[in-house]
Amino acid sequence: MENKKLRDLAELGEFGLIDVLTQDFQLKNKNSIFGIGDDAAEIRINEEESLLVSTDTLVEGIHFNLMYMPLKFLGYKAVAVNVSDICAMNGKAEQITVSIAVSSRFPVEALEELYEGIHAACEHYQIDLIGGDTTSSLSGLMISITAIGRVNKNSIAYRSGAKENDLIVVSGDLGASYLGLQVLEREKEVFKTNPNIQPKLDGYDYLVGRQLKPEARIDVVDQLSKAGVIPTSMIDISDGLASELMHIAKSSTCSVSIYSEKIPFDEKTSLTAIDFNLDPITCALNGGEDYELLFTISQNDFEKIKTNPNLSVIGHITSKDSGNLLIDKNGTAVNLKAQGWKHF
Amino acid sequence: MENKKLRDLAELGEFGLIDVLTQDFQLKNKNSIFGIGDDAAEIRINEEESLLVSTDTLVEGIHFNLMYMPLKFLGYKAVAVNVSDICAMNGKAEQITVSIAVSSRFPVEALEELYEGIHAACEHYQIDLIGGDTTSSLSGLMISITAIGRVNKNSIAYRSGAKENDLIVVSGDLGASYLGLQVLEREKEVFKTNPNIQPKLDGYDYLVGRQLKPEARIDVVDQLSKAGVIPTSMIDISDGLASELMHIAKSSTCSVSIYSEKIPFDEKTSLTAIDFNLDPITCALNGGEDYELLFTISQNDFEKIKTNPNLSVIGHITSKDSGNLLIDKNGTAVNLKAQGWKHF
Repeated sequence: MENKKLRDLAELGEFGLIDVLTQDFQLKNKNSIFGIGDDAAEIRINEEESLLVSTDTLVEGIHFNLMYMPLKFLGYKAVAVNVSDICAMNGKAEQITVSIAVSSRFPVEALEELYEGIHAACEHYQIDLIGGDTTSSLSGLMISITAIGRVNKNSIAYRSGAKENDLIVVSGDLGASYLGLQVLEREKEVFKTNPNIQPKLDGYDYLVGRQLKPEARIDVVDQLSKAGVIPTSMIDISDGLASELMHIAKSSTCSVSIYSEKIPFDEKTSLTAIDFNLDPITCALNGGEDYELLFTISQNDFEKIKTNPNLSVIGHITSKDSGNLLIDKNGTAVNLKAQGWKHF
Repeated sequence: MENKKLRDLAELGEFGLIDVLTQDFQLKNKNSIFGIGDDAAEIRINEEESLLVSTDTLVEGIHFNLMYMPLKFLGYKAVAVNVSDICAMNGKAEQITVSIAVSSRFPVEALEELYEGIHAACEHYQIDLIGGDTTSSLSGLMISITAIGRVNKNSIAYRSGAKENDLIVVSGDLGASYLGLQVLEREKEVFKTNPNIQPKLDGYDYLVGRQLKPEARIDVVDQLSKAGVIPTSMIDISDGLASELMHIAKSSTCSVSIYSEKIPFDEKTSLTAIDFNLDPITCALNGGEDYELLFTISQNDFEKIKTNPNLSVIGHITSKDSGNLLIDKNGTAVNLKAQGWKHF
């Protein structure tokens, strides 16, 4: 080892690192149905149902900035992003555990605010806080949540089930969270220059709200169930549409073709993107943190969802060799590239 | 709020803080049987079994020091302490998720070492790594593990089931881990003064091993099952015997009487305690990190365990008003005090 150059974490990126670290692990217990490589792990618990387990950690200075993220919102968001992972398996979250590590610079009142947000999310999503761990850190705040959910074993949606000709569907609208972050960052810079200037967030409520208080789409999971539609594959959009599409393509051994004109945007997203000299499509593809659901359905199921105002068909699944394509309004196809989030 | 003095985290301590933060949370889902207040939470999964969920976070500079804790041992220990929590409910751990936050000063090779330890523990305890999260931190290393286990609903051991006249039993021997830490701290100080002096750890293998590579007592859970004994209450010793006894007393609305002469020590623990001018009984009561099991059994079950060399009866349960007592060899009783670990 002495003569070998040590490898930098940034070289590998998060997904490469997980691959390297977990390559020697095999599943041994008969109840461990599915481990690493999807939004949540799957444990068989009885003849009809599986348990879903998902973990997400938010670190101060990396995933959030307390300068503009109120602690109550942080607590809410930390729960919502984990519930979203359970939704992405077509399941229903029922329990969470919460681990926090916090430096002594935080007073008790700060943690009470954080837990108010966690409590609000538990009420909204009807889930139970069943455990956790509270410890100190040398600096900053870290919050790690594990969400536990259930799904009927016949309704579970992996990333790996997409088939050629399946339709690609997305819920809600995209890109707003990323632009909300740009607005907050801009106001932070203004504040740093002159602390007497009040932040101008008027008119940006929707975008800032999408960034600070995203919601997990439990309503969409419910609507699909009522419509009798089981997605052939599903993932939630945390890292950006492009990155998530490529996860589905890779896991399902297929390709995707999506149409830029079909990507759903809120009007405010399109207008604000112009302000920031950004293409809204780029915000949707690479922005991330929308926490919408991206899924595929059999064409036979199109009739069942076509009137749902929460859902947009944005493309379809193609054969593995077709390449992952973004097709513009003129019919020009370019290769999809995933930037996603790089935390290292 | 402006005129109110903010409360310091240290004022409350870990258990007080958890009480304050979680007082408004109620269980809503019928499957959430038991939440905060035991070694693990309980979720009903089918007619016979419950799932157990436990989370523990280890933070660099608070829970471990990389100056003397090799990363491989750290990985092993992080798994073992969580498996121990599942043992403390009389269950069998089957899965874990691992979340790490790490600063970029760590090369990939360091994390590979950490995961080697996690892998070794997964093999030893026959558990599956089913998920997790890998992210960066601004400083240091944090590892948060959630363990998931199973238990027959009739065999589960809560902290709250101890009854008057039940026997108090402990597995293995106590105090060694704390003295192992003292040995490591002593050598660290010597090293700081003169880095050319090699650390003297010869002869301290047992103590240092108990600190760096503790084991969860899955063997004891198994032996109790084979002997047909279901503990009336159980907890694992992470914070020190005194603190754990008081948890059982409080949860079971009773008191404990233990006999100092009955507390099991390894010979090396007794000898090294003298070296450090410490009373081995104090090391057992307040040292912590032994990860032995502390439990109560009905007197009727004594015959079934009395020949088990891993188990020592150290006292018995008394009525709530009797007070928690430590009785010395002369029959003098003093009140038990729990110092435990204060991380804030």
